[in-house]
Amino acid sequence: MALVVQKYGGTSVGDVERIANVASKVAKRKAAGDDLVVVVSAMSGQTDGLIKLAQKITDRPSDREMDVLMATGEQVTIALLAITLENMGVPAVSMTGWQIPITTDSAHMKARIGAVETKRMREALDSGKVIIVAGFQGVDGGGNITTLGRGGSDTSAVAVAAALKADVCEIYTDVDGVYTTDPNLCRTARKLSRISYDEMLELASVGAKVLQIRSVEFAKKHKVPIHVRTSFSDVEGTWVVDEENTMEQVLVSGVAFDRNEAKISVRGVPDRPGIAAAVFGELAKRSIVVDMIIQDIAEGGKASMTFTVTKADLTKALDVIGPVAKELGAEEVASDTGIAKVSVVGVGMRSHAGVAAKMFEVLAREGVNVLMISTSEIKVSCVIEEKYTELAVRVLHDAFILPVR
Amino acid sequence: MALVVQKYGGTSVGDVERIANVASKVAKRKAAGDDLVVVVSAMSGQTDGLIKLAQKITDRPSDREMDVLMATGEQVTIALLAITLENMGVPAVSMTGWQIPITTDSAHMKARIGAVETKRMREALDSGKVIIVAGFQGVDGGGNITTLGRGGSDTSAVAVAAALKADVCEIYTDVDGVYTTDPNLCRTARKLSRISYDEMLELASVGAKVLQIRSVEFAKKHKVPIHVRTSFSDVEGTWVVDEENTMEQVLVSGVAFDRNEAKISVRGVPDRPGIAAAVFGELAKRSIVVDMIIQDIAEGGKASMTFTVTKADLTKALDVIGPVAKELGAEEVASDTGIAKVSVVGVGMRSHAGVAAKMFEVLAREGVNVLMISTSEIKVSCVIEEKYTELAVRVLHDAFILPVR
Repeated sequence: MALVVQKYGGTSVGDVERIANVASKVAKRKAAGDDLVVVVSAMSGQTDGLIKLAQKITDRPSDREMDVLMATGEQVTIALLAITLENMGVPAVSMTGWQIPITTDSAHMKARIGAVETKRMREALDSGKVIIVAGFQGVDGGGNITTLGRGGSDTSAVAVAAALKADVCEIYTDVDGVYTTDPNLCRTARKLSRISYDEMLELASVGAKVLQIRSVEFAKKHKVPIHVRTSFSDVEGTWVVDEENTMEQVLVSGVAFDRNEAKISVRGVPDRPGIAAAVFGELAKRSIVVDMIIQDIAEGGKASMTFTVTKADLTKALDVIGPVAKELGAEEVASDTGIAKVSVVGVGMRSHAGVAAKMFEVLAREGVNVLMISTSEIKVSCVIEEKYTELAVRVLHDAFILPVR
Repeated sequence: MALVVQKYGGTSVGDVERIANVASKVAKRKAAGDDLVVVVSAMSGQTDGLIKLAQKITDRPSDREMDVLMATGEQVTIALLAITLENMGVPAVSMTGWQIPITTDSAHMKARIGAVETKRMREALDSGKVIIVAGFQGVDGGGNITTLGRGGSDTSAVAVAAALKADVCEIYTDVDGVYTTDPNLCRTARKLSRISYDEMLELASVGAKVLQIRSVEFAKKHKVPIHVRTSFSDVEGTWVVDEENTMEQVLVSGVAFDRNEAKISVRGVPDRPGIAAAVFGELAKRSIVVDMIIQDIAEGGKASMTFTVTKADLTKALDVIGPVAKELGAEEVASDTGIAKVSVVGVGMRSHAGVAAKMFEVLAREGVNVLMISTSEIKVSCVIEEKYTELAVRVLHDAFILPVR
């Protein structure tokens, strides 16, 4: 008998028929003798519908109230799934973020989980119930509803699995595992049977939408084995595990891309110490995550700084940057949403030089201009013009990923 | 400066434009110097939509999960109204039932309010904020979400007003006050400027949909003045107040009707003590409210019992009654949804005999058969065939209500 945490995304619970499909899978697993905690997202489209409703009022609703609004999405799903299971004769009980409680900090719309209380869940499991947990949401120390940001349900699931010391956290998505790159872009893409937390982290952070990055960090920290698989069949997916549990290490495991970032440039800043601190300090205060950063000094001692944020944060970031740039005496603030980031990821890079050089060469051969570069131990990322995304992914995949692993 | 609790129903907050209208009214009142707590219902249609979703799964969803589901409706509204007010520059904060908290018993879908904590609300009011409260919902001692039943937002508003010792509880509806009867049925219906709690109680309990009955009980107990008015204009509505504050007492204040009940008959029960206790004890255990009751003994010592429940409770009531009837040796259980209840209400009845007699006479003259009768100090109700509802209301209104009061 295992303790299994399952997470079903918005597509898997998109209507009552799909919820019934999820309930059948849960019931089968429960009948096989496992204890189950099921974390669910909002029904697909619902969160977007709620956001649109708020945007009819203003394009800058307060984060606190947006969390109150959006948290209703998952609450609807947990009730419907619990009702479906009970109707099948499977004892079930739904729990919202505040009922468990899953406590977070107060960074609304991108809160971080602090602790997951297990008492109430243990009692429910002991009484033989399947627990249905609202993903994506928590409660802060002041009793305010918080949400974890897009994809936060993955993090909820892993955090719950970690707190309960579950045997596995199964993440059900609309794809059947983690691929070497997006199969829609590249028909030679292959499914990986195993991948390390670190590789998955880099793949997640560069835009492979399979798992939310914080969920993988959480899993790595608490050594929670993740099994990424599809809810539409019983086929094995991809296991995300400790590096020692992955198989032979290849140079590059995957090629990822992200079209969800925007570039901001602050140009012509009189160079003096503390410019970066002024700019990024203000952004951090507003919980805006900055990804890549480039700073250089042009002639005349003027500095220019370019960085990327998510497209969703762009308006807010420009609001913050405006006054700071003025204060610093900057000549211009410019932004560009027509960019994409492509990355190659693999733990094998640690012991192999030349991956970056090969990547630039492959892109240059196709006439793709590299606008920004960032590297880590196991990743090289390049920002390019958005229109070259598909081309870049395809040529990088062909260059780095062997047809049969 | 007054402390005002306002309650807006589903129609008043039916879309973002109407929410903006509500926000304007709130902002104006706030600018005039009053402190405001605004209780809102779910956007019209939303609760029904959620119920339909659950009914796609089963026609007997568990009450606990239905509450989890339905409570999302009001949560959406409070977020949208708070966002709208903040966008107008009016500081606002939303609060769900559990955040205040409004604690209730555990009778899901028809919970009763035990206490309303004021600490969090006081702090928000002291900091100059308008508080937006989710009506209809609370939380029980075990941390489970509860709802108060249809129209429960009125009760939420009055309970909040009582707890905060507010100067007035304004209930905004789609009608502009309390009428002598439904103006849609009877064109001589008139708006009352004042009505006593007791009269309003009887009118509410017999189906005038303006105010929920428990809200009036609450208001009477805590002496909260209620002002029933429309959100679509600034016209004065009807004040519901202590009897000593009403004007001259008339014989009959209003004629009400209710098409929302169903009749159940248990026939041919061998007469022995405890029959009624057996039947109604089981119903009470399941929190099914029984309205009118008739019991009589036919020849042969067989008893028959007829009573009414809401149509919504009919299936559940029949489920409960089936085994009980069998155990009692009853010959038949029959139910009828084609009934209506018409009532005449007025504090003046206390000192005037003959109201009941006149009522039966008026109905008989029109050929309307009276199926059940129930009376109180200030009310006479008759159950009739549903098809006669409009006719009965019209002739009773003409017979009892003077054209000019």
